[in-house]
Amino acid sequence: MAENLKFAVIGGGSWATAIAKMLCVNLPEISWYMRNEAAIEHIKTYKHNPNYLSSVEFDIKKLQLTTDINEAVAYADYIIFAIPSAFLDAELEKLTVSLKDKIIFSAIKGIVPETSLIVGEHFHYKYEIPYYNIGVITGPCHAEEVALERLSYLTIACGDPKKASMVAKHLSSNYIKAKISDDIIGTEYAAMLKNIYAIAAGIAHGLGYGDNFQSVLMSNGIREMKKFIKKVHKMKRNINDSAYLGDLLVTGYSIFSRNRMFGNMIGKGYTVKSAMMEMSMVAEGYYAAKSAYKLNQGYGASTPIIDAVYAILYEGKNAKTIFKKLTDELD
Amino acid sequence: MAENLKFAVIGGGSWATAIAKMLCVNLPEISWYMRNEAAIEHIKTYKHNPNYLSSVEFDIKKLQLTTDINEAVAYADYIIFAIPSAFLDAELEKLTVSLKDKIIFSAIKGIVPETSLIVGEHFHYKYEIPYYNIGVITGPCHAEEVALERLSYLTIACGDPKKASMVAKHLSSNYIKAKISDDIIGTEYAAMLKNIYAIAAGIAHGLGYGDNFQSVLMSNGIREMKKFIKKVHKMKRNINDSAYLGDLLVTGYSIFSRNRMFGNMIGKGYTVKSAMMEMSMVAEGYYAAKSAYKLNQGYGASTPIIDAVYAILYEGKNAKTIFKKLTDELD
Repeated sequence: MAENLKFAVIGGGSWATAIAKMLCVNLPEISWYMRNEAAIEHIKTYKHNPNYLSSVEFDIKKLQLTTDINEAVAYADYIIFAIPSAFLDAELEKLTVSLKDKIIFSAIKGIVPETSLIVGEHFHYKYEIPYYNIGVITGPCHAEEVALERLSYLTIACGDPKKASMVAKHLSSNYIKAKISDDIIGTEYAAMLKNIYAIAAGIAHGLGYGDNFQSVLMSNGIREMKKFIKKVHKMKRNINDSAYLGDLLVTGYSIFSRNRMFGNMIGKGYTVKSAMMEMSMVAEGYYAAKSAYKLNQGYGASTPIIDAVYAILYEGKNAKTIFKKLTDELD
Repeated sequence: MAENLKFAVIGGGSWATAIAKMLCVNLPEISWYMRNEAAIEHIKTYKHNPNYLSSVEFDIKKLQLTTDINEAVAYADYIIFAIPSAFLDAELEKLTVSLKDKIIFSAIKGIVPETSLIVGEHFHYKYEIPYYNIGVITGPCHAEEVALERLSYLTIACGDPKKASMVAKHLSSNYIKAKISDDIIGTEYAAMLKNIYAIAAGIAHGLGYGDNFQSVLMSNGIREMKKFIKKVHKMKRNINDSAYLGDLLVTGYSIFSRNRMFGNMIGKGYTVKSAMMEMSMVAEGYYAAKSAYKLNQGYGASTPIIDAVYAILYEGKNAKTIFKKLTDELD
């Protein structure tokens, strides 16, 4: 690329691995930070991430792998964060290199628990990054299908359309189509809220509700999401665009979604605590449900699905009883 | 029920069987017409339909079964049609009893091939039934889940809200929630168009596209449906209501949908003719694609998915090539 822009990927999970793969199509080199030193050694030796998307083979000459987040940040113009939101704050605490003049893109779908902010807001308020230097990378996109090079569409949102275009260009390939958007707040809230609906879908499935109900749940979910996002940031958007509805569907209908899986266990009778222990993974929607519920105390949107998930996860209410009541509020 | 209204079900398939089951919860008796005399004898002897939803046991004292459509029509105040649209005209040709003063509800999702009209329009134009005596019963609802008594939501649309309410009341039970709507044209077009999108989903799957693309296809599908229906009948409607989006999702995501199955075979390389022979069932979306495409020549809505399905099914175009082109038009 003529621009000679430098990109860093922060994170060693499946979505980070997918993004590293996408960037390597277009760039001679990227910096890639992950905490796990053994994983880095494995990648250097065997050319694939041992833990995630291990079928993806990397040209290791292109990878500047590091366990030092400062090294990655210092290297790059564009920094793409793709770690669970629950770990973001702790990672950022390690920074000694300034984020000033860096362009930050979040591929994280969630709420930062420490501040109850979506990631863009967190960078803006806590690190004083201006919104024109903050962006969001959103699906609908399972990382697993990127590994298989199955056609996927991304939406890249940024207050500055040039920066959105630049990231879109560097992620695009014959199997990735990336469009740009100026709805940075809305796309990020959608990416966060969809995980709550995926938990709801899982609970419903665990309780024995079928496909007919699932479609009603998704249809109510997108209407609820529209109302919620409108309260947070009112602007002209088509909620049925892929970044909102598509992202909801790919997660809500995926039996591999960790959020849906978590909900399914709750529906089947696991306690929240035991479901979390059993999964040994963070279900982003767990934190999202709390934040969305609390936020909406101020907004007052009608969000019966979020309310139901919150009551089950945080108020110890019985899933069967709550969902029975919920079914009367849906249509 | 105090009203003492009489209902007849026309059809012996799975959806007709599901509707007969729903009505039997609320009525002491219904008339049920089907062509297949052996099936009637089987139901009388074994209490279940041998060919469809055979797990559903009927109280046969409630069933006035008949192979004479005139008997069923003469019996009833409300007549619910649930046969494939391709057979409707031939069935109606048998009528000697007048449909005047009868209230007609269509549970058919498709286009009448002989007239290229949706079912409500067909009754209106060909049989001079006023729109206030015509209604539509729509999902999202797989008949198979009604058999299992899994919670399902129906939308009952009629120009006359009292008649919609009456049908809703007679179909409701502890596992069926029925809401009413005044959008008789829009709900029926949605029920018809969704089958085209289900064929598209099947073709995509057959060609090897994955879940990421499926969600983009559905997200574009609902936007396309909205534009199309707005051209046909402009009124205030929320396209994300269960009768539109929910119905699209339950079909588009169902691996049991015959439309999706038909599309899948086309995507895998079957010719249209051999796919139809192999299925030995009518895929409603096959006729719907032609009618929608032709209709839209007059409307001029942007409908790349319908156009793609039409080109593959009726113009002998190569599915792989057409879908490659389609992926550039979606976002």
